[in-house]
Amino acid sequence: MSNDSRIGQAWGKAAEEGAPWIVHGNTDVWFGGAARAFMSYAMKVDRMVWFQSSAAGLENPALQAFGGKAEIYTSSHVQSDAIAEWVLWAGLDFFGNGAERRAVQASGRWTFVPFRELSSTRWMIVGFGHIGAATASRLKALGAHVTGVRRSGGTSPHANKIIHPDQMLEQLGDTDAVLLCCPHTPETEDLANAAFFSAMKDGSLFLNVGRGALVNEGDLMDALDKGRPAHATLDVVREEPLPPESPIWAHPNITLTSHTSANTQQSRFRNDQLFVDNLTAFLSGGELRNVIDPSEFDD
Amino acid sequence: MSNDSRIGQAWGKAAEEGAPWIVHGNTDVWFGGAARAFMSYAMKVDRMVWFQSSAAGLENPALQAFGGKAEIYTSSHVQSDAIAEWVLWAGLDFFGNGAERRAVQASGRWTFVPFRELSSTRWMIVGFGHIGAATASRLKALGAHVTGVRRSGGTSPHANKIIHPDQMLEQLGDTDAVLLCCPHTPETEDLANAAFFSAMKDGSLFLNVGRGALVNEGDLMDALDKGRPAHATLDVVREEPLPPESPIWAHPNITLTSHTSANTQQSRFRNDQLFVDNLTAFLSGGELRNVIDPSEFDD
Repeated sequence: MSNDSRIGQAWGKAAEEGAPWIVHGNTDVWFGGAARAFMSYAMKVDRMVWFQSSAAGLENPALQAFGGKAEIYTSSHVQSDAIAEWVLWAGLDFFGNGAERRAVQASGRWTFVPFRELSSTRWMIVGFGHIGAATASRLKALGAHVTGVRRSGGTSPHANKIIHPDQMLEQLGDTDAVLLCCPHTPETEDLANAAFFSAMKDGSLFLNVGRGALVNEGDLMDALDKGRPAHATLDVVREEPLPPESPIWAHPNITLTSHTSANTQQSRFRNDQLFVDNLTAFLSGGELRNVIDPSEFDD
Repeated sequence: MSNDSRIGQAWGKAAEEGAPWIVHGNTDVWFGGAARAFMSYAMKVDRMVWFQSSAAGLENPALQAFGGKAEIYTSSHVQSDAIAEWVLWAGLDFFGNGAERRAVQASGRWTFVPFRELSSTRWMIVGFGHIGAATASRLKALGAHVTGVRRSGGTSPHANKIIHPDQMLEQLGDTDAVLLCCPHTPETEDLANAAFFSAMKDGSLFLNVGRGALVNEGDLMDALDKGRPAHATLDVVREEPLPPESPIWAHPNITLTSHTSANTQQSRFRNDQLFVDNLTAFLSGGELRNVIDPSEFDD
């Protein structure tokens, strides 16, 4: 049962059915999976000693509210491994000409479909936190060249080089695939705009697992028409759920995955493990992992 | 121009057009890319000092004929890296629910599509030569568990464990994905038959990059109906090109890629490099790579 996430399940359908193994929440300790009922309850609480989030991001208004009333707020980065696999899937399908392979099979023609090895590609990863590093280390293991972009600079064992955001545009032209996985802040809003896409390489791949607001979607549609990039694989969009009338759904050069790049049993199991580890530390007075600085929740 | 394979091009259209950089073949040294004209010529030659094949396999009748008259026959394993990426593509698309992701996008519904991480899967690789090892090392780097199957036993740094073919059936039930990449011999003909598929795990993935004759295709179709395996991703089939009337083309649980898993510019470049390295060794009286034992070409 090592891959079975029981704590995660405790807040959903199983909770309504009164499953016997449910760990009940209280106002000292709160573990948030997908839990509307508990969310409403927790919103009414005045203070908490510790809040364990199951997400990495902090910008959600509810999480901001919890952060404001929790003495200790811990985040989670367990989704990075799942997201890194989603990126590999997207990259191998693009450079492997997956769409053409499927079209050829559907046509019933025994046809030569050449492809490009991921090992020969150059990647730029914008935002080099947990997701960026988890993705980069896998890409490097497969022989790709990885440039990470982050404000703090320095070096990383997971990337071939790290550059500052100021150097990003000038190096995009030498990049076969660009992944956005930075947080959404006023500085990163519309980061991928017309100027950004114009600086990309012909035939390249654009990926976004960060936030929809990082991308100017009108500019992206125009850019795809020009082949820079040739394809976009998006897990996130500006408006979620994406409205049915959006041209993104049926665009031939966009792959869209409904914000599910992190949705694996393995992510949930790692979240359970993080909660149990942090609970152990909490109860024994030890040091918790992923403690967030309270200043992140200032108005 | 480092990814441009000029030697490989020398035997095709460019040769007919008399491109100035063509390296002409002769009966002392012969480098075989895709080369019908040169093949017919070489078939008429009585003996060769050295033959460099661009393939790993030896069972092709023409290659057997060349092997019979070449004093030195060298093979090529440069396709392993491309094939390993094809396997990752196939594995990530299956466990990542790629088909469902595409169907959901096509339907225009913002829908939760969970998936399973490759890092949680157990693989069996039947035939643990160059392709097996190249694939296994990548799967291991991504966190999967890999069991290699080969007659010679022993251990490998690329696999978690190596087993003998006699142990294969009993361990299939614990395997999420099975890759065939062994040679076709009388012993491996129809290796994947009804008994093999019955021993597989519900919902598992079957892949073949070896030879079509390793698989009893009727048994495979029956097995897919039972969900063991749930899906087959095939680069090779018994009859190539696959006849238009074959039910394999349109089977909803088969992905077919027309024997193209090795077809990358990077494979060709590595082949050129191998030829140049071996040519250097040949001219200087050094040791050539991938020399095949002449007994492989006995009748």
